[in-house]
Amino acid sequence: MTSLTVVHGAAQLARPSSGTVETIPDAAVAIANGAVVGVGPTDDVTREYPPENADTAVDASGGTVLPGFVDPHTHAVFAGDRADEFTAKLRGKSYQEIMAEGGGILRTVRAVREASRETLVSNLCDHLDTMLAHGTTTAEVKSGYGLSVDAESKLLAAIVEADARHPVDLIATFMGAHAVPDGRETDGYVDHVIEKQLPAVADQGIATFCDVFCEAGVFSVAQSRRVLEAARDLGLAPKIHAEEFERIGGAGLAADLGAVSADHLLQATAADAEALADAGVTPVFLPGTAFTLDTPYADPGLFASAGADVAVATDFNPNCFSQSMEFAIDLACHGMRMSPGDALRSATAVASDALALDDGTGTLDAGAPGDLVVADVPDYEHLPYNFGVSNIETVLADGEVVSRAG
Amino acid sequence: MTSLTVVHGAAQLARPSSGTVETIPDAAVAIANGAVVGVGPTDDVTREYPPENADTAVDASGGTVLPGFVDPHTHAVFAGDRADEFTAKLRGKSYQEIMAEGGGILRTVRAVREASRETLVSNLCDHLDTMLAHGTTTAEVKSGYGLSVDAESKLLAAIVEADARHPVDLIATFMGAHAVPDGRETDGYVDHVIEKQLPAVADQGIATFCDVFCEAGVFSVAQSRRVLEAARDLGLAPKIHAEEFERIGGAGLAADLGAVSADHLLQATAADAEALADAGVTPVFLPGTAFTLDTPYADPGLFASAGADVAVATDFNPNCFSQSMEFAIDLACHGMRMSPGDALRSATAVASDALALDDGTGTLDAGAPGDLVVADVPDYEHLPYNFGVSNIETVLADGEVVSRAG
Repeated sequence: MTSLTVVHGAAQLARPSSGTVETIPDAAVAIANGAVVGVGPTDDVTREYPPENADTAVDASGGTVLPGFVDPHTHAVFAGDRADEFTAKLRGKSYQEIMAEGGGILRTVRAVREASRETLVSNLCDHLDTMLAHGTTTAEVKSGYGLSVDAESKLLAAIVEADARHPVDLIATFMGAHAVPDGRETDGYVDHVIEKQLPAVADQGIATFCDVFCEAGVFSVAQSRRVLEAARDLGLAPKIHAEEFERIGGAGLAADLGAVSADHLLQATAADAEALADAGVTPVFLPGTAFTLDTPYADPGLFASAGADVAVATDFNPNCFSQSMEFAIDLACHGMRMSPGDALRSATAVASDALALDDGTGTLDAGAPGDLVVADVPDYEHLPYNFGVSNIETVLADGEVVSRAG
Repeated sequence: MTSLTVVHGAAQLARPSSGTVETIPDAAVAIANGAVVGVGPTDDVTREYPPENADTAVDASGGTVLPGFVDPHTHAVFAGDRADEFTAKLRGKSYQEIMAEGGGILRTVRAVREASRETLVSNLCDHLDTMLAHGTTTAEVKSGYGLSVDAESKLLAAIVEADARHPVDLIATFMGAHAVPDGRETDGYVDHVIEKQLPAVADQGIATFCDVFCEAGVFSVAQSRRVLEAARDLGLAPKIHAEEFERIGGAGLAADLGAVSADHLLQATAADAEALADAGVTPVFLPGTAFTLDTPYADPGLFASAGADVAVATDFNPNCFSQSMEFAIDLACHGMRMSPGDALRSATAVASDALALDDGTGTLDAGAPGDLVVADVPDYEHLPYNFGVSNIETVLADGEVVSRAG
């Protein structure tokens, strides 16, 4: 039995296509058994796949069809939140003062260690609902608020369980080297990550990638290299938080290791951009972090000059509490001054590269997963033009309607 | 026959109260015949107004009740849009080049002159739907894309008609002095505004305020004064676009005239802030404009030092295409570094001051209009904390449910 979905009559269909965005007016998509089988003018597609014969038909009149968004960098699994710290910072309290009072990332670590796996799954699914409503159909989620074998395993198992329960497809990243727990010194903790956490995670088969917070005062380039090489030996491909606050060499390490992605890159130089491009590492920008910290954005121009496509992600976490890739696209355009086409590519096909996905996710190519968005705009340029609002009307995952605006 | 609405069981109710935000946990609101009659703990309110006796009962469990947002500065009535210019600017085209090619504000003027009143009403109502979904229940709308007696009258009549049709309450502002039409010199056009447009608008009784774009290269302080004094003589209270790109004295003019509000104020000084505070002029910040132009935000600190509460507005127009006061609150916090409480006040009670409303709009005080929002957040601080997403669950206008999230 074939299950058929036809989305028809869209004012425009827009999809990434070899460095540009291909647009088709009055367009339709057919999805059979969860995979894209036809894309083109409505007349052509519906001749072959009549909506009246489909299990699901979606009238996209007046709207724009896009690939579902791919969010390649989130820390979306945690317990509690830190809204009170956000308010305290706006009232002038420094991050150092907040840390001294027991706040910051280690507060989330305490909350996660106390939380049940079920609570973590439930919290994550709530956030996935918001992601989905704003168009995300695939997301990476990192652990890193556990910092022990048990708590990191609990976080990764929660990601695996939420992936099974929720229409958003999840890719799990192990990030034991996210912070140093209270009362540990860094080298000893790196040993623990390598000797205890990584083997346990690899044994359970609950993570695809390994990430490290390579930053002055957190994990050095040498420490990051040790973790990522050990991870690679166990089959976890490397990702890296690089050059966010200080330029210490994380981008060079990413290039050297052939990491899947290097993320943040606010302090990256032209040489870093070229090294990443040469090594085939996908740069990932996280403009929400700059927005909420009120700091300058990363510079897309450096990477354009190096010939590298950049991905955009939300960085959703208790310190950057936005689940929306729709808003990340707004920030890519209004904040980082990327064109709407580059921003769309960065949130779909290039984001998929940042997760090493080669099944067509983020493209709407033939055979790609039937993950797509119908936005209530006449063309894709209107998505960021009409900023700060929700333009997503309908979301499909594997050809099924999984979210609809009120 | 009394019509009764009860919103009950909210995790928090938050409302402006003499310079601060009052919060009530486990709260309820009762609205009789469209006006607030009871606010307090759910037990108290529902004892007097049992939900089972109400015509409408809203279970707000887990959510936060706020006054409906008041947007005190929009140019929301127009035809066409300028998404292509947005894209061109991101690709490096200057505003001067866009103007030379016939783009910019005068392009919207051409589109408005060609549009029927019915088209303008329909476009405006579409935008009001988006405003409402993001929590706005009262909005000011300016004319200013007509620049002739007929076209300005058509715009204002469209506002009046949309106000009658749509649940968002509208206040109309005449802004014939928004730009100088093609082929006119400025002084002659100012004469035309004063001698022809203003009397026609006043005769028809279709505007409450008069606004002027007081800016270098547009209307000088002297020209702005002429228009606003003439408007005041005809019963239209003055508002003013002041100190946006260059500081030329618009804030001082606003103080001198006792204007209702002075808006933009990016280049305002401490002396300007004090002059406005002394004269009782409400300053209005438009952070969306800075966001989309990628320029610095206005400085709330100047006005806090002067003891002046500031209002926040969207400035929604074809060049700043965001209808959302929810996002304006995000920008007030993340961009302008206002506290969540000050941002909430700026979007409700203080915004109401910027429209000279004295019926309790923006407060939830007894007797105020039953315009309120239920947000899917545990307290009001979470509204900007969870930025760039839509948190508005239910919107009531005059006690009736007029918008509900999907």
